[in-house]
Amino acid sequence: MQPERALPDKEKQFSEWYSEILERAELVDIRYNVKGFVVYRPNLMRIINLIRNELESSLISRGHQQVMFPIVIPMSYLRKEQEHVTGFEAEVFKIRAEEGEEELALRPTSETAMYPMYALWVHSYRDLPLKLFQTGTVYRKETRATKPLIRGREFFWIEAHDAFENKEQALTQVIEDIEITKEALRKFGLAFIVVEREEWDKFPGAEKTFAFDCLMPDGKVLQIATTHYLGTKFSKPFEVIYLDRAGEKKNVHQTCFGPGISRMAAAVISIHGDEFGLVLPFDVAPIQVVIVPIPKEGKEKEVIAKAKEVEERLEKIHIRTLVDASDERPGAKFYKYELIGTPMRIEIGEREVSERKLTFFRRDIRKRWEVEECELEVEVLKHKEDILKNLTNRSNEKLKNAIVRINTKEELKESNNKIILMNFCGNQQCAERIKYDTKGYEVRGSRIDKPEDVWGPCAWCGSEAKKVVIAARAY
Amino acid sequence: MQPERALPDKEKQFSEWYSEILERAELVDIRYNVKGFVVYRPNLMRIINLIRNELESSLISRGHQQVMFPIVIPMSYLRKEQEHVTGFEAEVFKIRAEEGEEELALRPTSETAMYPMYALWVHSYRDLPLKLFQTGTVYRKETRATKPLIRGREFFWIEAHDAFENKEQALTQVIEDIEITKEALRKFGLAFIVVEREEWDKFPGAEKTFAFDCLMPDGKVLQIATTHYLGTKFSKPFEVIYLDRAGEKKNVHQTCFGPGISRMAAAVISIHGDEFGLVLPFDVAPIQVVIVPIPKEGKEKEVIAKAKEVEERLEKIHIRTLVDASDERPGAKFYKYELIGTPMRIEIGEREVSERKLTFFRRDIRKRWEVEECELEVEVLKHKEDILKNLTNRSNEKLKNAIVRINTKEELKESNNKIILMNFCGNQQCAERIKYDTKGYEVRGSRIDKPEDVWGPCAWCGSEAKKVVIAARAY
Repeated sequence: MQPERALPDKEKQFSEWYSEILERAELVDIRYNVKGFVVYRPNLMRIINLIRNELESSLISRGHQQVMFPIVIPMSYLRKEQEHVTGFEAEVFKIRAEEGEEELALRPTSETAMYPMYALWVHSYRDLPLKLFQTGTVYRKETRATKPLIRGREFFWIEAHDAFENKEQALTQVIEDIEITKEALRKFGLAFIVVEREEWDKFPGAEKTFAFDCLMPDGKVLQIATTHYLGTKFSKPFEVIYLDRAGEKKNVHQTCFGPGISRMAAAVISIHGDEFGLVLPFDVAPIQVVIVPIPKEGKEKEVIAKAKEVEERLEKIHIRTLVDASDERPGAKFYKYELIGTPMRIEIGEREVSERKLTFFRRDIRKRWEVEECELEVEVLKHKEDILKNLTNRSNEKLKNAIVRINTKEELKESNNKIILMNFCGNQQCAERIKYDTKGYEVRGSRIDKPEDVWGPCAWCGSEAKKVVIAARAY
Repeated sequence: MQPERALPDKEKQFSEWYSEILERAELVDIRYNVKGFVVYRPNLMRIINLIRNELESSLISRGHQQVMFPIVIPMSYLRKEQEHVTGFEAEVFKIRAEEGEEELALRPTSETAMYPMYALWVHSYRDLPLKLFQTGTVYRKETRATKPLIRGREFFWIEAHDAFENKEQALTQVIEDIEITKEALRKFGLAFIVVEREEWDKFPGAEKTFAFDCLMPDGKVLQIATTHYLGTKFSKPFEVIYLDRAGEKKNVHQTCFGPGISRMAAAVISIHGDEFGLVLPFDVAPIQVVIVPIPKEGKEKEVIAKAKEVEERLEKIHIRTLVDASDERPGAKFYKYELIGTPMRIEIGEREVSERKLTFFRRDIRKRWEVEECELEVEVLKHKEDILKNLTNRSNEKLKNAIVRINTKEELKESNNKIILMNFCGNQQCAERIKYDTKGYEVRGSRIDKPEDVWGPCAWCGSEAKKVVIAARAY
């Protein structure tokens, strides 16, 4: 990696910026030659693993257990719930295990793989709640244009599938899923809106669907997690039945939750990045502090020794630290760690050693400053917090500024790249008309994180409004 | 889980024992209804993750980086190396992305997915060595009888793929791979033999293949890891070329290494388990110490408080500890944690509290004893070591006793359930004859961990022996 020109302007040319950063920061290689499939490179995998660990630990700490189900689903399983198969059949990859045998689908999502087994595992209320998750890849024969990590035919996620005695418990789980997602996104410094999707836009087979949307730099929103209340829509065809406390047979109430790891990585990359590369908050930074020794002839030993000493002190307070003592020139190192988004850099040269000082650099604001060596730990921990606060504020600010209230069809048509808040009649035809006439604005649903009261008629058709919804262009 | 009858005798009825333990310890569910695909349950996943973490950290600490390649491989990639495709084509699952498009294989192993990309990433000697690994599932349309974790159509492993400037460096990597495997197996308390496979038994496309075999309770061996020197056999067709220090174009020398996570789990389960369930050494035990409070009416509070105190002390020394304060009876808890192999149990009742003592139980030897409360940490750490030593000794002893030297055809034919050490002529026909006439004895190759000099003619055909080999029945 050698110093090169800056990246394109992210706000004006998001697509170009995104392709370039994926390539130059060595995150993704798109040259695999199969539509919709890309290679995840080490710099991306380290971020992916941090996101994954955060979500997995959060699920486990709330009583979920990990499982691994087969990647293939018999087509007869997939077809058991009518809305579900209608939603997915067109886009599943099919394989045949043996001539004459049933066709198998490469899992597009795992409800129909898992629930036949739930029927075998659940007998009584004592087996409930059953809270399981798996981490892995799923497959959908996406026909639209693909974009690495954002829309592809293979993506990496977690899916949690839970079963309960009743609706109330299941809805409490939905709230927990929302809390898990919020906690993670806060650690990643990402602004978000949480909506309940409209009736026709729910997950195929769900009673209720809730989704997290993030705002991407081009004004489109990206759905990065969903959680669904499935009611008994799957537990009936799959016969997931338990004996309740009164000895009566009942269908379990189910939920499923899918935080998208690839998409969260895409959001972190896109929302925080700038023309110098990635910008990462500590919690998703594989290296949190890089130490660059700047040796002067004859003083190499002292400089390296000091760098190692600083590294040891930071490791003691659990900061992921790297001393880059390679032969590259300091400038090339600065460039490289800025490109991969390392949040803080410490430069140590002869002067720093003799004056017992350290030169700090913060990636998010690209500022350099000096502190007394004895302040090391305090300084790093202070800026760790401050970096997250800064990224969060920036991202919240952008989201806030992007949301506009509109009252008429004309305003909606002119709302280029904005997220719309509008009164809505609730009719699917109206939503379809909006999408068609505005070249892509989709009714995303009503915010549950900031509910609003209707203040007028449907902004599109003028009939009585039933709710206030978010409309936006979306990935 | 309620106390039930003991499991079948592992040595006499291994198959029955294995099926029952997988079911009763809730490790695997075989009722998924697709041949060769099973469900990994939480008690197994926790073990799988410990094995996985051990191997991944070991690879990373030796300079490997993690990647994730697509699960599909274009058939034209798979066909680029002739021996490789001949070895795998019959058993790949094929899917078609679109009508008219090229067929895709579900990866049976990832050489042909990864090396086209290596050709794009490697330009100069400065890009070498390239050491990458991925963790995931692979797919082979196994036609023989399947056995969960041992032989299936989907299995979970790590594959590391490395590229070097020359043969010497590549062979040094092979030694490192062997070291990584040895280190892991030592932590898991497993005895093993390391062999170099015969010419006709190498990995399809390899110059040299080295394999780790473990001895299963029924006398068959199980291959749990292989590492291969590929030479330039893939770098030629895939054109993985670098400019050397003299400016000359050269093909890289490659290695690939595949420790099987599912199979290591199968070995841990089978080799250490007994008629009461799993027996785990600390390093693969999800819970290392379970504390069972035995409350007496009126004294519940003191007993629970003491249990919590012991838990805190153990967590401080990084022992994975669980207090099971559930409503089940102590006997049911003892049964349950013995079944899932928890290495140590601490019982705390009223007497223990008042006498400041703790009652310990060790799973591997099933012995109970008492110690002073103040000895807690020392006692746990001492027995942690001792349990590993005991399991290792047991397993080494069994392996040692299973190996017999033979000198004649008759001896070989009568060597039921033994691992054979014999002089061998080196001819494939002779090996095939042995397999056929002995109902399954396979020449596994020559031990590299304990090389032996030829001491006589080929035990089977009587002609001049070229080497001493191991022959065994194998999974």
